[in-house]
Amino acid sequence: MANTTKETLIDWLRDAHAMESQAVEMLERQAERIKNYPDVLAKVQEHIEVSNRQADRLKQCLQRLGTDTSAIKTGVAMLIGNAQSLSGVVASDEIVKASIFDYSFEHFEIANYRALISAAEQAGEPEIARMLQPSLDEELEMAAWLEQRLPQLTKTYLERRETAGTAEAKR
Amino acid sequence: MANTTKETLIDWLRDAHAMESQAVEMLERQAERIKNYPDVLAKVQEHIEVSNRQADRLKQCLQRLGTDTSAIKTGVAMLIGNAQSLSGVVASDEIVKASIFDYSFEHFEIANYRALISAAEQAGEPEIARMLQPSLDEELEMAAWLEQRLPQLTKTYLERRETAGTAEAKR
Repeated sequence: MANTTKETLIDWLRDAHAMESQAVEMLERQAERIKNYPDVLAKVQEHIEVSNRQADRLKQCLQRLGTDTSAIKTGVAMLIGNAQSLSGVVASDEIVKASIFDYSFEHFEIANYRALISAAEQAGEPEIARMLQPSLDEELEMAAWLEQRLPQLTKTYLERRETAGTAEAKR
Repeated sequence: MANTTKETLIDWLRDAHAMESQAVEMLERQAERIKNYPDVLAKVQEHIEVSNRQADRLKQCLQRLGTDTSAIKTGVAMLIGNAQSLSGVVASDEIVKASIFDYSFEHFEIANYRALISAAEQAGEPEIARMLQPSLDEELEMAAWLEQRLPQLTKTYLERRETAGTAEAKR
């Protein structure tokens, strides 16, 4: 049978690499726009570096499985298409909606890493599962930060909107 | 100033209503396709009813704020556009990717309810915050179910793919 578990694992690792590339692109666009929320900006900049390392980790997993990483971009048009439409939203919308979207995207990544770890175990590749655990932990940390920050961020945004106007409040 | 906190709260309640309408549409498409995962099908069907109730709850919040709910669909083209592109993915992809997407979308909803509750408090509308709490609790429950289910679902999918083929495994 053509579709072995190992082949599926390779497909999903490639999808995850595209996901991290998209995360970097999306966060870079956000970082260019954020002006008045220094703690959010610092966290976004930090997570750009984290995401680059996660992409490298996925490449190492693919190399370990004997795959040519030059073909890494194939078959992910779907994922990219979605993330682009979503990152467009983020760029044109205010800080609260961007944080909501980032929180959702973090959980998209969390679920992908959970499925990848499960697939690596099923494929008899425990070393791959072990290599991906730090990425899962990093996404969980980022999601927890966003969740903890969101209620106060919402209030700050609304206060600024009343006092300083929409343009100052939204980014 | 035109953009008061209460007006923003109303805008966000309308966005959330569109979000729930989209959730219903997306889950209905999924339910039509799921064949071989009865527990996932049952949970999706249950969550369609939950989402309809959540949409009604948002209407009640808008009515309480004196808003004409006939205008409820305005200004949400962005949200709808995204969710449609994403639901297209779900319809064409396998059970694991659909579950990953649902998990992400649940967190999109969770963050929206957290921001709404915070905005309602900021707007001096504690009753609206109280009315939305059950929706937040329901989304958290659905997200926890999906998270708990994902590792075994991934393994079952991969086993079926090896033994019964892709067509049987994927939905």
